[in-house]
Amino acid sequence: MRETRKGMLLVISGPSGVGKGTLFKKLLAQDETMTFSVSYATRDPRPGEVDGRDYHFVTNEVFDEMVKKNGFLEYAVVHGGRYGTPVQPVIEAMEKGLNMVLDIDPQGALNVMKSMPDCVSVFILPPSMSELRRRLEGRGTETPEKVETRLANARGEIALKDKYDYLVINDDLDAAYEQLKSIVDAEKQRSKRYFPIIED
Amino acid sequence: MRETRKGMLLVISGPSGVGKGTLFKKLLAQDETMTFSVSYATRDPRPGEVDGRDYHFVTNEVFDEMVKKNGFLEYAVVHGGRYGTPVQPVIEAMEKGLNMVLDIDPQGALNVMKSMPDCVSVFILPPSMSELRRRLEGRGTETPEKVETRLANARGEIALKDKYDYLVINDDLDAAYEQLKSIVDAEKQRSKRYFPIIED
Repeated sequence: MRETRKGMLLVISGPSGVGKGTLFKKLLAQDETMTFSVSYATRDPRPGEVDGRDYHFVTNEVFDEMVKKNGFLEYAVVHGGRYGTPVQPVIEAMEKGLNMVLDIDPQGALNVMKSMPDCVSVFILPPSMSELRRRLEGRGTETPEKVETRLANARGEIALKDKYDYLVINDDLDAAYEQLKSIVDAEKQRSKRYFPIIED
Repeated sequence: MRETRKGMLLVISGPSGVGKGTLFKKLLAQDETMTFSVSYATRDPRPGEVDGRDYHFVTNEVFDEMVKKNGFLEYAVVHGGRYGTPVQPVIEAMEKGLNMVLDIDPQGALNVMKSMPDCVSVFILPPSMSELRRRLEGRGTETPEKVETRLANARGEIALKDKYDYLVINDDLDAAYEQLKSIVDAEKQRSKRYFPIIED
């Protein structure tokens, strides 16, 4: 049986602290058809983050240069830092028929959905706002003011959840991952991406 | 956590002999959120088929009466018999927020997709035409001429596969079922159907 497939651009988003990064990493580790691209960021690395693996940590000047060259699929100011998704790796992946997943803040996700309307967008929700607060505080890296800012942002981001194709509540990580995996597996079977050739 | 969901109408179709009935029954047995409606048919029951369970087997006169009353979501002539999907059970299920699955021939499926554009449509494909022939002959209920007619129809039906949302190849039954289940599970998470309420 012969078949060809078009590449899928999967956008995983959700409020800060919801666990989208964990779901993103689990998907990349378990689904060998998924590739990723490294975003650019102007903020300082968090403990354990590695330049070129978690983000390309760059100066404001380098970031400005990328913006000028139209090098970003989207970029946004989030919690005081600037983040950008480089356009070139996404274009290359789609041309090769590879699947690519982006872990991206809601502001950036909405921009990607506008510029790449064929993307598959998944918004990760917390089971409750009090649980989201608990997770943000549990990080131990956020000042109380930053926690309040992130929670206020989260309310606005959740209000726009219907802009996304799919919603997944991250209450239990394994259950949330199973739902995300179903979405990925289903979208691989979309007739607009999947071209099996039935031999006579 | 509170949530509400809108009902999903799932249409499973594919050429005769591809195994869509088996996948349909497995889904109904394993997914308790799925309901079904019994179609009307003017053909004779096959061995083992029960009136009111597999089909409402009716006379041409009763069928004509249903057509006159606009009682069918779709109806079609397939292989010499007439088949119709009653509209009332579908409307009732959607109003109650229940999921409903229809096992329906491709001619009828295309009609349902037109009248219910929000439905989720899945087309089941054989791995090859020779395998489809083997399955039709293996039924033991079809004359050689009927097999040829069904294979000729299958070619035309497969040519329209891109009209469906999703494609699943039924080579191995368990693998095909897993793909179908992923599609159903993913579609339950669609933001247009799924309305979680995140408490503050």
